[in-house]
Amino acid sequence: MKLRDIGEFGFIDRIRNGCLIRPRGVVQAIGDDAAAFRPPVDRLMLLTTDLLLEGVHFVAEATSGSNLGTKALAVNFSDIAAMGGDALDTFVSIAAPGDAPLDFLDDLYRGMKALATEFDVNILGGDTTGSLRDVVISVAVTGSVPEDEILLRSAARPGDILFSTGFLGDSRAGLHLILNRVPLEPTWLSNLFNAHVTPRPHLHEGRFLAAGKKVHAAIDVSDGLSSDIGHIVRESHVGALLHASRIPVSPNLQMFCARFGFDPVEFALIGGEDYSLLVTVPEVHADAVAEGYLNRFQRPLYPLGEITDSDKIELIADNGRLREVPPTGWDHFRSGKNK
Amino acid sequence: MKLRDIGEFGFIDRIRNGCLIRPRGVVQAIGDDAAAFRPPVDRLMLLTTDLLLEGVHFVAEATSGSNLGTKALAVNFSDIAAMGGDALDTFVSIAAPGDAPLDFLDDLYRGMKALATEFDVNILGGDTTGSLRDVVISVAVTGSVPEDEILLRSAARPGDILFSTGFLGDSRAGLHLILNRVPLEPTWLSNLFNAHVTPRPHLHEGRFLAAGKKVHAAIDVSDGLSSDIGHIVRESHVGALLHASRIPVSPNLQMFCARFGFDPVEFALIGGEDYSLLVTVPEVHADAVAEGYLNRFQRPLYPLGEITDSDKIELIADNGRLREVPPTGWDHFRSGKNK
Repeated sequence: MKLRDIGEFGFIDRIRNGCLIRPRGVVQAIGDDAAAFRPPVDRLMLLTTDLLLEGVHFVAEATSGSNLGTKALAVNFSDIAAMGGDALDTFVSIAAPGDAPLDFLDDLYRGMKALATEFDVNILGGDTTGSLRDVVISVAVTGSVPEDEILLRSAARPGDILFSTGFLGDSRAGLHLILNRVPLEPTWLSNLFNAHVTPRPHLHEGRFLAAGKKVHAAIDVSDGLSSDIGHIVRESHVGALLHASRIPVSPNLQMFCARFGFDPVEFALIGGEDYSLLVTVPEVHADAVAEGYLNRFQRPLYPLGEITDSDKIELIADNGRLREVPPTGWDHFRSGKNK
Repeated sequence: MKLRDIGEFGFIDRIRNGCLIRPRGVVQAIGDDAAAFRPPVDRLMLLTTDLLLEGVHFVAEATSGSNLGTKALAVNFSDIAAMGGDALDTFVSIAAPGDAPLDFLDDLYRGMKALATEFDVNILGGDTTGSLRDVVISVAVTGSVPEDEILLRSAARPGDILFSTGFLGDSRAGLHLILNRVPLEPTWLSNLFNAHVTPRPHLHEGRFLAAGKKVHAAIDVSDGLSSDIGHIVRESHVGALLHASRIPVSPNLQMFCARFGFDPVEFALIGGEDYSLLVTVPEVHADAVAEGYLNRFQRPLYPLGEITDSDKIELIADNGRLREVPPTGWDHFRSGKNK
């Protein structure tokens, strides 16, 4: 069945079920001119938006609807995580041609509802419209955070230790597998594929780190490690020194780089779409924060460098040589890279 | 100059100025993973989103960037108006090809900032990304409303008088002029054109009517009078009876219909994109509400029918004959109409 067989309002009726996951405080969900809800008390509101285009951010034939829906929400949840917040409500706008298969769209919403349910987030509104050719997905997510716990890019200070909440470069390796149609066997290859198509938002990690009140700055790794550190460096008017030997590279990525002839550190530096969080912590609190994190999540917080006053991003290579890293990463208007 | 000449971050720097119009309560504007702001105290939050695609909702060659930007915000402000709210913050995501002319994009943001300034609304975030061909604009707008003043589609009751805050059908006439390349002389033709390309959001009108606490239901006329009354009828489980002779048709539309051979009532019924508000008011308060509105805005509130318990939309024609009106209007997946 095609989208045009049920029409816009038939489609809205079809997706409406299962969207109200956390009803408390919701006064009007899908079905009026706007959603209405009671805002969090004694907390800041957060809001982030993301626009995903077929042919630019995803290839409809190369992804399942469910994976696409999951990722569309995950990348926005990740932005809330990077502010130290809890995600509250999601608003999904979708454009699709009339001949779009309903199966794909049902699967898309199934993926979104599954991730929303896992993180106790509503799908509270959006917009549906026709498109000439491609599918377009626009997501807005609200969140909340106590004002004295908000994590900003601008709060890094020289001397802070720079941590990552996860491995870096896996997603870029997964993209390489997709673009080059590499068969996803053995399992470590499918793990890299999954890192790209269904990244995990580090919402619990971000909230835990913010609530501890020891973290200075934070950002999520969407454009790539060097580019995203660049945002912290620029907004905080600081520098950063990275240790190549400490950049967290997964065993999967090690095997991938050995097989395909890439340098894992370069892959991690310019990768993008990892959706780990980078956080900076004053040195005096760094050990305690890392220990608390390990106890809570049974995974380490990876220290990969320090914040400096150099106004540059520098990297100490394995051989001890220091070089400057350009804050290059993904620029949507300049490159043709499929992201 | 083209978009790719300055890149994504150059573009963000370029548009960032003049976006923070009402700084009070804003903790983080454009420039971090999410915007952060203090929510309104003792009010509900409202949130609405809209997705606009080149070739579907607008033709880039047929509109100025400024008009497009103004309309992109206006249609969202109108949704906040239909809830009885004040608009607070706007989030604008834009996708454009690398060869998009910067002049057009600058003009687009100029139009948005002008309307945002007029209604004291911030542009507080968004997303920028490349597209293969077309311009895509996604707008999210937050608002607030006291909980006991919110206007819902579901609150109409039999016996209510149905009012419109403005003329109906002008926008559809303007679209006809554009699609048929009719020269915009004399002035009454350009007035119809303007009704389509720069509709006014009835934010002050909606807020005034909500604050008076006498209005039951409200909706804005985006899909068309018959379709939008259909939403009230469906959500409120009521019917509606319209009087053809009372449907507010502007003198401009009268002249247009005389010249091009259309029926003004039909045009008003199925028009769409008027962005007037339809409100229902208990009969006992109807005269007082209309009088207060006239005093405040020096324009009438047009009574065009009554809410019934018929579960149907009916129309009394000028000759006294009663007929049922199908709640037809714009369905984005079923028709090829350019909207």
